[in-house]
Amino acid sequence: MKDIETIDTLDQLNIDLQGDVSSPLGFIAGGLHAGLRRTRKDFGWIYSTTEANAAGVYTLNRFKAAPLIVTEACIKNNQVLQAIVVNSANANACTGEKGLQDAKDTQAWVAKQLNITQQHVGIASTGVIGSFLPMDKIQHGTEHVMEEQYNHGEYFNQAILTTDTATKHLSVQVEIEGKTVTIGGTAKGSGMIHPNMATMLGFITTDANIESDTLDGCLRESVDESFNMITVDGDTSTNDMVLCMANGQANHTTLDASHPEWHKFEHAFNFVSQYLAKSIAKDGEGATKLVTAKVKGAITTEEARKIAKSIVSSSLVKTAIHGEDANFGRIVAAMGYASDSIVPSETFVTLAKISVVDEGMSVAFDEADLKAKLQEDNIVIEATVGQGNGEAAAYGCDLSYDYVSINASYRT
Amino acid sequence: MKDIETIDTLDQLNIDLQGDVSSPLGFIAGGLHAGLRRTRKDFGWIYSTTEANAAGVYTLNRFKAAPLIVTEACIKNNQVLQAIVVNSANANACTGEKGLQDAKDTQAWVAKQLNITQQHVGIASTGVIGSFLPMDKIQHGTEHVMEEQYNHGEYFNQAILTTDTATKHLSVQVEIEGKTVTIGGTAKGSGMIHPNMATMLGFITTDANIESDTLDGCLRESVDESFNMITVDGDTSTNDMVLCMANGQANHTTLDASHPEWHKFEHAFNFVSQYLAKSIAKDGEGATKLVTAKVKGAITTEEARKIAKSIVSSSLVKTAIHGEDANFGRIVAAMGYASDSIVPSETFVTLAKISVVDEGMSVAFDEADLKAKLQEDNIVIEATVGQGNGEAAAYGCDLSYDYVSINASYRT
Repeated sequence: MKDIETIDTLDQLNIDLQGDVSSPLGFIAGGLHAGLRRTRKDFGWIYSTTEANAAGVYTLNRFKAAPLIVTEACIKNNQVLQAIVVNSANANACTGEKGLQDAKDTQAWVAKQLNITQQHVGIASTGVIGSFLPMDKIQHGTEHVMEEQYNHGEYFNQAILTTDTATKHLSVQVEIEGKTVTIGGTAKGSGMIHPNMATMLGFITTDANIESDTLDGCLRESVDESFNMITVDGDTSTNDMVLCMANGQANHTTLDASHPEWHKFEHAFNFVSQYLAKSIAKDGEGATKLVTAKVKGAITTEEARKIAKSIVSSSLVKTAIHGEDANFGRIVAAMGYASDSIVPSETFVTLAKISVVDEGMSVAFDEADLKAKLQEDNIVIEATVGQGNGEAAAYGCDLSYDYVSINASYRT
Repeated sequence: MKDIETIDTLDQLNIDLQGDVSSPLGFIAGGLHAGLRRTRKDFGWIYSTTEANAAGVYTLNRFKAAPLIVTEACIKNNQVLQAIVVNSANANACTGEKGLQDAKDTQAWVAKQLNITQQHVGIASTGVIGSFLPMDKIQHGTEHVMEEQYNHGEYFNQAILTTDTATKHLSVQVEIEGKTVTIGGTAKGSGMIHPNMATMLGFITTDANIESDTLDGCLRESVDESFNMITVDGDTSTNDMVLCMANGQANHTTLDASHPEWHKFEHAFNFVSQYLAKSIAKDGEGATKLVTAKVKGAITTEEARKIAKSIVSSSLVKTAIHGEDANFGRIVAAMGYASDSIVPSETFVTLAKISVVDEGMSVAFDEADLKAKLQEDNIVIEATVGQGNGEAAAYGCDLSYDYVSINASYRT
């Protein structure tokens, strides 16, 4: 994933690609095999030795899964979490009242095991839609949560994976008031999993001292430019969620926008979100390339986001890039139906740094030169669509034969 | 395509699946090989022996191709067409001022050849984006337009095709005032063509006596429920257009909503649009199945359309159906992110007539039974999403390996 990191080489951050949610002070993470899967770890946790201010963002899908409903309510009511447990292999979605009760029972078992408040336990699930959780196996998992032998950040990073081909995690450190503040993150990707859904889960921990409201605002802004700007196939899961915990153990004065070093923290936080989001996009099912679309000159940021997302979402663009085919016409078309605000005569497009559209007209380019550039793993499309100030970047992947084979037929 | 026809078996219409735009009185169509393609016909025309009232609908893509800009202006100013010429293999899009001039020159050559007003010649193109039309070849085509040897409806049906695997055409007859009124239609599909874009072109002719304003309204309403409700890959071309000509040669009194037999005409017109649209969906690139999503109970028709289109647009649903995999969770998810108005507890879904979701919860179903039904060519998904009056149907196709192979790499 080095090439993803280099996308942000300007960032003067202390980045540890081995780090994860267990890196900040006072955080412990782990995972084990509870039996939902055949052999792989399928039950993981994040624990803070002290209560942590919490914030979350949740799927906009109307069929919101039970664990999201339960967790969202807890964070709304208390703004505090001390633990998060995650199971893979079963989404606990479309499971009605029983699904809600199962999520609450899981919460209660974990709270009892860890001797903490039930309302301070976050729950996340990813996997099959429409099946009830195997509560005997879930209970087995909860009985061993935080057991020394299972406490290892990498075990958590693995336990939440589905069709991801790699774990996705990092930590970043910044100095606040001369003290080291660590932000750790772990995510799983939106590869569709047997037999049903794509789910994106993100977890961010920090030992920063920050109020939950401030954390919430920081998370929302950050997600808008990271997790909300990636697409693998345009499908939004019933279980997508990003949870954030801040336990204040770095022991500096409370951070907020008025703090002189706020922007250092905000920047580091955004870097974590961006890195995790790009890692998910690059690891999309069947993906062989990370596709980045950068749009500027739009009338608003929102329009810029629509255009950038349309480019990386287009099946025509995705297949062309998979084929390393300089199909700039498909990029122009994907832009053209994304926003009415585009001014064709003021539109410029470069593909892999080579100009392909100038003032809305195609320009001659060296086919062999562009073809060679399209063989790289990171493909960047840059577009100017007018003279506005709206800018955005979106991240996706190519559409390959493997995407179809992974998704065409599982259950039979 | 019989199974598409049977979708509308309730319609008591005199349907001729051999018919096309040349079927109504006073219409002649033809096509020839002008040299834009290697050997296949690539230049076609529709001609009315008398001036015809005209209407058109055009792509919403901001990068509207030159022929659409020229044709739209002509119809806006005159509401009359006497001829339409179409070339395949080159879209004349992203070609700036020269592209507009090329379209006008084509118009002028055709007008001169047929001794009609230039403003009465409609122009359509489909093919490569960003290349100038080879005007020598276009001119060659115009010099032979309406030559006896090339005048054959089937030649036109063929000349406009791109990656379509079959011609798409029919005619329908109804009695108005005891006189036979014929409506003919020919279309090409949104298969992406070498090396660039998807284009959907539709042409509808009729000998009905109807004012252009009435025709325009009829066309727009009809398109909203047909051509606008199909998707192959969600990409909207720079060249999509549906043109309609009515020459009045059936010689009945003027048709409008106040005419006692208006609804017979409107129904026949809608049938033509629907049949052509479904034919396009079923012949989407790499498609092996027609997928129909019928939604009811939405708060508005617009919401119902959004939900129905979301289902047939979802890559997860499309790949699952390709794999004949009963992945109802993907259908629910695609509905859930399409509209905020969905009421999960009032949501019911059937897949191939088998209930899979009841009041928002999954229901047990016979896997083998459903698997068998999913092997059919026409897959119908029916969903109720609440208690509103909004209803809609959308049409799409499965997503196959062939889709990727057709689109991954052409130019190299």
